[in-house]
Amino acid sequence: MKIGLIGLGRMGGNIARRLMQAGHEIVAYDRSAEAVQALAKDGAEAANSLDDVRAKLGSPAIWWVMLPAGGPTEDTISAIGEGAKDGDIIIDGGNTFYKDDIRRAKALAEKGVHYVDVGTSGGVWGLERGYCMMIGGDTETVNLLDPIFDALAPGLGTIPRTPGRVAEVVDERAEKGYIHAGPAGAGHFVKMIHNGIEYGLMQAYAEGFDILKSKNSDKLPEDERFDLNMTDIAEVWRRGSVISSWLLDLTAIALAKDEKLEGFSGSVADSGEGQWTIDAAMEEKVPANVLTASLFARYRSRVEHTYGDKVLSAMRFGFGGHVEMPQ
Amino acid sequence: MKIGLIGLGRMGGNIARRLMQAGHEIVAYDRSAEAVQALAKDGAEAANSLDDVRAKLGSPAIWWVMLPAGGPTEDTISAIGEGAKDGDIIIDGGNTFYKDDIRRAKALAEKGVHYVDVGTSGGVWGLERGYCMMIGGDTETVNLLDPIFDALAPGLGTIPRTPGRVAEVVDERAEKGYIHAGPAGAGHFVKMIHNGIEYGLMQAYAEGFDILKSKNSDKLPEDERFDLNMTDIAEVWRRGSVISSWLLDLTAIALAKDEKLEGFSGSVADSGEGQWTIDAAMEEKVPANVLTASLFARYRSRVEHTYGDKVLSAMRFGFGGHVEMPQ
Amino acid sequence: MKIGLIGLGRMGGNIARRLMQAGHEIVAYDRSAEAVQALAKDGAEAANSLDDVRAKLGSPAIWWVMLPAGGPTEDTISAIGEGAKDGDIIIDGGNTFYKDDIRRAKALAEKGVHYVDVGTSGGVWGLERGYCMMIGGDTETVNLLDPIFDALAPGLGTIPRTPGRVAEVVDERAEKGYIHAGPAGAGHFVKMIHNGIEYGLMQAYAEGFDILKSKNSDKLPEDERFDLNMTDIAEVWRRGSVISSWLLDLTAIALAKDEKLEGFSGSVADSGEGQWTIDAAMEEKVPANVLTASLFARYRSRVEHTYGDKVLSAMRFGFGGHVEMPQ
Amino acid sequence: MKIGLIGLGRMGGNIARRLMQAGHEIVAYDRSAEAVQALAKDGAEAANSLDDVRAKLGSPAIWWVMLPAGGPTEDTISAIGEGAKDGDIIIDGGNTFYKDDIRRAKALAEKGVHYVDVGTSGGVWGLERGYCMMIGGDTETVNLLDPIFDALAPGLGTIPRTPGRVAEVVDERAEKGYIHAGPAGAGHFVKMIHNGIEYGLMQAYAEGFDILKSKNSDKLPEDERFDLNMTDIAEVWRRGSVISSWLLDLTAIALAKDEKLEGFSGSVADSGEGQWTIDAAMEEKVPANVLTASLFARYRSRVEHTYGDKVLSAMRFGFGGHVEMPQ
Repeated sequence: MKIGLIGLGRMGGNIARRLMQAGHEIVAYDRSAEAVQALAKDGAEAANSLDDVRAKLGSPAIWWVMLPAGGPTEDTISAIGEGAKDGDIIIDGGNTFYKDDIRRAKALAEKGVHYVDVGTSGGVWGLERGYCMMIGGDTETVNLLDPIFDALAPGLGTIPRTPGRVAEVVDERAEKGYIHAGPAGAGHFVKMIHNGIEYGLMQAYAEGFDILKSKNSDKLPEDERFDLNMTDIAEVWRRGSVISSWLLDLTAIALAKDEKLEGFSGSVADSGEGQWTIDAAMEEKVPANVLTASLFARYRSRVEHTYGDKVLSAMRFGFGGHVEMPQ
Repeated sequence: MKIGLIGLGRMGGNIARRLMQAGHEIVAYDRSAEAVQALAKDGAEAANSLDDVRAKLGSPAIWWVMLPAGGPTEDTISAIGEGAKDGDIIIDGGNTFYKDDIRRAKALAEKGVHYVDVGTSGGVWGLERGYCMMIGGDTETVNLLDPIFDALAPGLGTIPRTPGRVAEVVDERAEKGYIHAGPAGAGHFVKMIHNGIEYGLMQAYAEGFDILKSKNSDKLPEDERFDLNMTDIAEVWRRGSVISSWLLDLTAIALAKDEKLEGFSGSVADSGEGQWTIDAAMEEKVPANVLTASLFARYRSRVEHTYGDKVLSAMRFGFGGHVEMPQ
Repeated sequence: MKIGLIGLGRMGGNIARRLMQAGHEIVAYDRSAEAVQALAKDGAEAANSLDDVRAKLGSPAIWWVMLPAGGPTEDTISAIGEGAKDGDIIIDGGNTFYKDDIRRAKALAEKGVHYVDVGTSGGVWGLERGYCMMIGGDTETVNLLDPIFDALAPGLGTIPRTPGRVAEVVDERAEKGYIHAGPAGAGHFVKMIHNGIEYGLMQAYAEGFDILKSKNSDKLPEDERFDLNMTDIAEVWRRGSVISSWLLDLTAIALAKDEKLEGFSGSVADSGEGQWTIDAAMEEKVPANVLTASLFARYRSRVEHTYGDKVLSAMRFGFGGHVEMPQ
Repeated sequence: MKIGLIGLGRMGGNIARRLMQAGHEIVAYDRSAEAVQALAKDGAEAANSLDDVRAKLGSPAIWWVMLPAGGPTEDTISAIGEGAKDGDIIIDGGNTFYKDDIRRAKALAEKGVHYVDVGTSGGVWGLERGYCMMIGGDTETVNLLDPIFDALAPGLGTIPRTPGRVAEVVDERAEKGYIHAGPAGAGHFVKMIHNGIEYGLMQAYAEGFDILKSKNSDKLPEDERFDLNMTDIAEVWRRGSVISSWLLDLTAIALAKDEKLEGFSGSVADSGEGQWTIDAAMEEKVPANVLTASLFARYRSRVEHTYGDKVLSAMRFGFGGHVEMPQ
């Protein structure tokens, strides 16, 4: 199929390449002419504007937008939508908030344009490993796009089949690495929860390694200390343990390079998806202590001292005369 | 009654003074001769060693130990116990772990010595307001000491009676500000939970003020900011609101002095009691998310970055190529 | 002043009464004619529709809307706004989400109508104790309404002044029990955080009493149990302890009636304000573990078993062959 | 090597089998004669008492104790220790608290007996996949036992090597699936943290699936619902996503059988290791919100309503007149 790919960053560029490797044609556009040229070298048709892309796409036009969520995606989809014709398809492969998908799909449907949201996991490894995709949209359109998703997905590969899985009951596409989760918004909703879980998994490992590492600390009495090796612990847990995972593999890679992780500041960013996950939990009245604590740990990592901490000290001073000085 | 008071710090000294104001006699001892002299000026009989205290006390000897929990208290009670006679009474008024009380009471009982643990709340305000006391020990001994507890407690004072409270059913001492909670250890157990709750209450206010204060922050888009006055907010909540409390009064005092609380570092200490409360919760299999989060917030306030935070960044780098630099 | 009071539930009715006691005139309207008649007996002027209220108010008309947040408030304010004239004032005394205030204020300002949001704390006790009020709106209007707020507030009363509070620097109204927190929305924002804190305080006490109560449980080995009296503990903590508060007073009242609290199901509701507080924390990137855990504890109290719990058991079955049967 | 294996439950029996498959000799003993016979059929030498095992082992005798932590393990090791000779080795392969290991190792060392603690992960899958082992003990003894650990470990197998791992710097055994973590206690300490992390990972998935599942709920307004398929979502996340893991594989297996997980009660047990992990975190003053929340979620899953919930309702009744009835 022929796809207009808008946004050629790390994710967008690799998606384009994986699609071309599977025989699809790419019309490539990015604000950066350099990025366009780089992809053109790899076989894409270069475009220098959205209009140019449109001119070069057939009918119906298929667009894959791979831009930062929020303003950039919103503006671009809005611009594409204005010039779109009945039957055209716009795919948002970024990290859009699912309620924005629902709104956009409704607006575009009024002029016969189909909107498909694709939550895409796989990071920088996707070009090689394939992308795990969670897709929202109307069934006819999602089915029409199947060759695209099939090309991007990892496929059955070497991951063993789930015992007891019965293809008649459940979606066979899931085994290849993509699902049609539901109507517009459902794809990004599932991806959002995926990222919320990711925060929780990461924080579980982080706390565990923190307790291990602090067991070596000279803040403990000498006879309570061990001299544990983080690098070997991460490695051994990859092998036969209950907590093996891809995130642990990544941790093991980092620790093999530097057990002290001194290259990292300890200030941890968060994308919006952790926050949206908590919003969803609250809308549904579902307790989500772990996912929330994971998000808050990142907020906390980015400030030295909170005003709240000072309020605590002020109370302590009030009732006990404690004064807490800078360490 | 005549009481040997060991440990004349802020708490011990004021307890001695309040007892003397009520007509009790104090034999005072502290490692610091200066502290002993200061109390002697206020009417106590000075002693220069534990043996000297013992010589000056009648029989049965009544000891009130008011020292830091752990080593100092343990050693002193051990030393007193060695020279104690059948019928003597040792009161531990500090913040001892309740299982240590149980152990000590058992050991001392073998030689006929009574052990009483008194969890004491009131901080530096106790001399004036009276102390709230939670007492563990055998009933006969606790009853015998009643004049001491009665003198230290706030008494009915101006705090309104609880509607519906029926003196025949419940302990009338509670209205005066002290209870006999149970056998040895029960006093400190109740005090320990009291402190655990205190952590939770404090953290609830701390988080609330943090959210209020951050609403003024220039990190927010300008049209999402307010210019809220912490000092006035603390004050107004003292007056007719559901969240009025003594801790809020203390917060209002601190904010009236300096809304920015710049004199405080934001590094917050914790005594052992928060930790013991969580231990108790876990022994009983009781979920205690709020009390635990309050304790952990203090741990977190005392480190700049955790190893766990760096583990998070290392994973993020692994799957997405994010590098998180020092802010 | 003459005020049209819309919504004569427990809060609205008592507010009307307290205003009339201070000499203000009330035009009263409620869907329930009975509620209107009840208030008319106490001196209010009865109205049978919003139009009727409008006809009976002077110019500028002052409205106090005291209805459940969401639909009822929105519809009523919308209806009042449609017929309002330049200079009229609409006060929302309910628990409205502060962003709705900002939106409404902006819309009403276009026709010269002033919108004031009043976060009101005090519950069923307010008629007698007075209401604590956090007010948002333009300064001129809030000042104009001062006689109303002054009448509703508790006033200086018996609550001691905060030492060190300097009237020139801070708002003297705070000492009487109301503040002008900022522009429209600021009042409800501060009230929202107030309620968020309230959740945290309540949960801290709840967990503490849970740990105390469970220490009596026959699930513990006999030699680890105490026989603690919840009623006396709540009472003694009211007297001289660091954790005394109005919420503790209420707990003591409940426990004095029934230590086992058997009249309560243990299923705990939440209004929207806890959730909005967490939303605000996330928008500001402020960690709020305690407030969030408090909210989630309520969600959890309302379901018997979560799907998440079953997912845990399913995994445990997977790796260890554990089967967890209904208890 | 010849090993006396005490405790032939699911774990002990499979460990014996895997050792025999590698050519080691097993002297097998269990309280259940049936279990001994079953293993004898698979090639073990049957014993009918600890003394009998001792008689059948060479010198130095090597014991592997695989019993429930606490009493059974303690009593058995104590009995073995009494009859042990200089140079004998006792391996505790169970889930012992690491401080018990330290105590035992010290006591046994006095008579020249070596104590080795082996934290063993792998569950019922270990016979086939191999066991991940974290080992504490003196270096000489651990090295001597290497053939045993080598036989039990998964070996390099199909798990890819960690890029950048340099064998000279780090322990090559880790790649085969076992590490010598440090002196006695260190093995079980690392295993304990492993289980703490496991709780956190499991709860992260549990909360995520709960939010997904509740998005289908008819408690939400119809236009806010999706109809998400848990089975397919678990499957697709196994394939190329950031959150793929062995625990997710197990979840996918369970969901493939029954998406509703109706065979599970939702009441989730915990072994002691989650609790010990939190204890360790508190001893080290490390915040561990996620691991703690995971443990508490299990506590909460096992009670219908907490006393704390009732305290909340009692307060709500106090300030607002709310009565919360059984749902």
